[in-house]
Amino acid sequence: MLPTRIIPPTASAHPYPLLIKSLLLSGGRYEKTREIVYRDRVRYSYATFNERVARLANVLSAAGVKAGDTVAVMDWDSHRYLECMFAIPMLGAVLHTINIRLSPEQILYTMNHAEDKFVLVNSEFVPLYNGIASQLTTVEKTLLLTDEEKKGADLPALVGEYEQLLAAASPHYDFADFDENSVATTFYTTGTTGNPKGVYFTHRQLVLHTLSMATTMGSLDSIRLLGSDDVYMPITPMFHVHAWGVPYVATLLGIKQVYPGRYEPELLVQLIEQEKVTFSHCVPTILQMLMNTPSAQGRDFGGMKMIIGGSALNRTLYDTAKARGIQLTAAYGMSETCPLISCAYINEELLAGSEDERITYRIKAGVPVPLVEAAIMDADGKILPANGEAQGELVLRAPWLTQGYFREPEKGQELWAHGWMHTGDVATIDGMGFIDIRDRIKDVIKTGGEWISSLELEDLISRHPAVREVAVVGVVDPQWGERPFALLVLHADQTLDAKGLKEHLKPYVEQGHINKWAIPTQIALVTEIPKTSVGKLDKKRIRVDIAQWQAAGSAFLSTL
Amino acid sequence: MLPTRIIPPTASAHPYPLLIKSLLLSGGRYEKTREIVYRDRVRYSYATFNERVARLANVLSAAGVKAGDTVAVMDWDSHRYLECMFAIPMLGAVLHTINIRLSPEQILYTMNHAEDKFVLVNSEFVPLYNGIASQLTTVEKTLLLTDEEKKGADLPALVGEYEQLLAAASPHYDFADFDENSVATTFYTTGTTGNPKGVYFTHRQLVLHTLSMATTMGSLDSIRLLGSDDVYMPITPMFHVHAWGVPYVATLLGIKQVYPGRYEPELLVQLIEQEKVTFSHCVPTILQMLMNTPSAQGRDFGGMKMIIGGSALNRTLYDTAKARGIQLTAAYGMSETCPLISCAYINEELLAGSEDERITYRIKAGVPVPLVEAAIMDADGKILPANGEAQGELVLRAPWLTQGYFREPEKGQELWAHGWMHTGDVATIDGMGFIDIRDRIKDVIKTGGEWISSLELEDLISRHPAVREVAVVGVVDPQWGERPFALLVLHADQTLDAKGLKEHLKPYVEQGHINKWAIPTQIALVTEIPKTSVGKLDKKRIRVDIAQWQAAGSAFLSTL
Repeated sequence: MLPTRIIPPTASAHPYPLLIKSLLLSGGRYEKTREIVYRDRVRYSYATFNERVARLANVLSAAGVKAGDTVAVMDWDSHRYLECMFAIPMLGAVLHTINIRLSPEQILYTMNHAEDKFVLVNSEFVPLYNGIASQLTTVEKTLLLTDEEKKGADLPALVGEYEQLLAAASPHYDFADFDENSVATTFYTTGTTGNPKGVYFTHRQLVLHTLSMATTMGSLDSIRLLGSDDVYMPITPMFHVHAWGVPYVATLLGIKQVYPGRYEPELLVQLIEQEKVTFSHCVPTILQMLMNTPSAQGRDFGGMKMIIGGSALNRTLYDTAKARGIQLTAAYGMSETCPLISCAYINEELLAGSEDERITYRIKAGVPVPLVEAAIMDADGKILPANGEAQGELVLRAPWLTQGYFREPEKGQELWAHGWMHTGDVATIDGMGFIDIRDRIKDVIKTGGEWISSLELEDLISRHPAVREVAVVGVVDPQWGERPFALLVLHADQTLDAKGLKEHLKPYVEQGHINKWAIPTQIALVTEIPKTSVGKLDKKRIRVDIAQWQAAGSAFLSTL
Repeated sequence: MLPTRIIPPTASAHPYPLLIKSLLLSGGRYEKTREIVYRDRVRYSYATFNERVARLANVLSAAGVKAGDTVAVMDWDSHRYLECMFAIPMLGAVLHTINIRLSPEQILYTMNHAEDKFVLVNSEFVPLYNGIASQLTTVEKTLLLTDEEKKGADLPALVGEYEQLLAAASPHYDFADFDENSVATTFYTTGTTGNPKGVYFTHRQLVLHTLSMATTMGSLDSIRLLGSDDVYMPITPMFHVHAWGVPYVATLLGIKQVYPGRYEPELLVQLIEQEKVTFSHCVPTILQMLMNTPSAQGRDFGGMKMIIGGSALNRTLYDTAKARGIQLTAAYGMSETCPLISCAYINEELLAGSEDERITYRIKAGVPVPLVEAAIMDADGKILPANGEAQGELVLRAPWLTQGYFREPEKGQELWAHGWMHTGDVATIDGMGFIDIRDRIKDVIKTGGEWISSLELEDLISRHPAVREVAVVGVVDPQWGERPFALLVLHADQTLDAKGLKEHLKPYVEQGHINKWAIPTQIALVTEIPKTSVGKLDKKRIRVDIAQWQAAGSAFLSTL
């Protein structure tokens, strides 16, 4: 370490640790009249929000929650969840956002592994909770969250119902300072193998992530993607990487926030219209669903801005959204990265170019946001040149990357090999700093000594007018090692076979976009493509399905 | 300290300290084609800028600069200064920005007190430097900065000339990580009594200040005050609180930056026009000067946005600027605060109100920016209510306040009494969080048991059409304790006496804005009001002048 000059602070000086409370206490409280809305059920001001966070802190303290305890939440996206995102960490406790899309067995595993002591349970999940309650090893008390009139439930060790408890609590709480490196939140990633892994983020990390995201969304693009006059609604679950951290940004900026509960497409469209939502974010499949829902047919979304992440954004979806009045910008991140790492904001060089070129950049993973350094690395830990050509694993440094996996030190060492965080994604980085994700390392198809990006193939196949959705995976081939296999969902009344797909892809081979080995020799037409709990293509499941079909000689396969 | 959960990081994880290098390495480098401009003399791209920072680091290292050393700069605002703002701290050294408006004796004092080891001297300051060189106790080497053809100078221990040294150096430097609490910059405040005091800021502080300022300017206001499409030029010297920290923000955002050298009003106007400057900041007196300069007469500044700080912004100046196409926003800060603390951005409540009301808020000190907490305190250290009525000393908490005065621990304790940083300003805070500065504590006029704000009086007096500039101070009065005394500069061909001023102020007394004791019984008409080295009214000097005039029975005093 360099012998720099470090001066001990004056004894009476306030050290000002970076704590989540400062996002609330120095931010949103100045916009007292702005609203926080939950479906068509609840609507209140930031002034009330601040009071409710204090009330919740009093309720939890009275229930026995202490600094260092883990408090879990099982809820749909709600104002209550937002209150928990502040009150729980502000007590020095750890918020565990339970992924309620996991199987009961996996939820049980994560709750025991995270050592949850208190659980806030939405009445809709009471049957699920009671199904695993007897096997929970650390839970001491429960709280009920409900939209129903009935404020009771058959929950073990129930302290009471959220609203009733809040109403009876004091609206004042003097939140203490503590070490900014205290864990604030934890949740579990669903890998394709083994048990879910727990990632965790500290107060310092969440504050820095919030500031960097605010700067990115407010200042870095040619347009203001998110600012004080926007209305925000997440369409990425709050259990999934804190709804990408945007609720913290929105609260800091004091903007109107809308929480839609469970994601019902009709309700989402209705809330967007009624509450004049201007900013949201989601994965591509959810956007598809939103635009295809009956009440959205023919509707113009009037300049709404959306960040797309989680999976690659393709040109077809970008253009479709544009035609419906939605301005998309791609961003990149993952559970391990808090999550924002890069955003496809447009620089001066691109502004000077053509609209078409700009769009090809708007749908890439983007440029690292402030305080993020990205590089690509080969298998030996060597950094490769950022020349837009060299492919390697995308590795990262930033102040808000998970510093390990909870109670799994060996996996943490793997994640952080060579002093960089490994994403498991194959990428290039070009001279402007744009990251282009080529594939998940394990989804790359290795055929005849060549590497084929399944993502690139999916993008090209999705341009066929008959194709509504596509997934490409590599399947074992005795001659070539692996061969690409395409799973297709077609638009109504459309047909396509392997030969037709080959015809469609031929021009791309001729133009050099892909090599001829990339043309799938086998395809399957299906009505639905398996997705993970957070809406991504579930390629692990797809590979299992394909193996079963092949074994059964299934009739809906089409072969060249 | 609360027993929160703290998990030791994975051994191989990168800790990512908050260092100034990350503002450069994760920010501006993605805007490679944007320009940095110095007068009409130098123009280069961010790509070159990055290389030059590395070159400078190599030059300084070769000259012997080591981590912990203090490296001083005596320059006008320039691209070189910007390079120093990065390269010097990025080496782990401390940048001392010398206030070249101080007297030679004071400069000498600050250089010895700061323990400067290396000094970069603009050729214009060589005579000044050589005048004090023999008394400098710690300086080992000098570098010459010059716009002249001649690249030599008679400087003791001269290493060489900046451009020649940079040209010969490698454009690569691998900047090391170090403790984010390392001191990065230092400079001296000129108090009204005693020697200048050294404040200092760490890497962590400057990074957090930058992110908070970017969020404030980009997202918090109803308009985007500063964003990727702006062109920035400071009109606050870089030696003065890092030009309020905006060069760091501008670099992070990768926007075009223009540095005007010495502040010559004609050149400033020319650069604003030629380089299409859209964002700047200055103290009120400089803005006056800019708008009054001959070449600016009748010119419309076409939507330029300016932050005004350092002194109170009054309505007259706001309206005058507005009529010239300049949108002003007040902000508040001081040398001890890095400096941004609050900004008069407009919230939803005010947006719903009248334009006139909005303007009364646009010219207040504003609302604390993200990560700043403000309160008002009485003399016993008790926090007073934020009700817009209670007056007390404005006290602050934020991650970027100087943690003391360099080598003056007792003064640091005073600054940080009761765990809050004391500003020395009397203020109110209203229910929306708006800070309204009433006066410097020592400038408040105590008359007949009442407190009169000299700032408020100055504002009301400045509304008289004959008045171009005004300063009000309290002078000792045997009967009342103190009485207000007004120093006036009138517009050409105008007259005003104490009686006329009384007539002007009477309605304000009747409307209850001020009490009748606030009407000055003595005024002096002068051609210029003394200013400090950073352009503020020099009330210490004014009091001395008045005492001398009174002793001499000076004829240009007018008495009721």
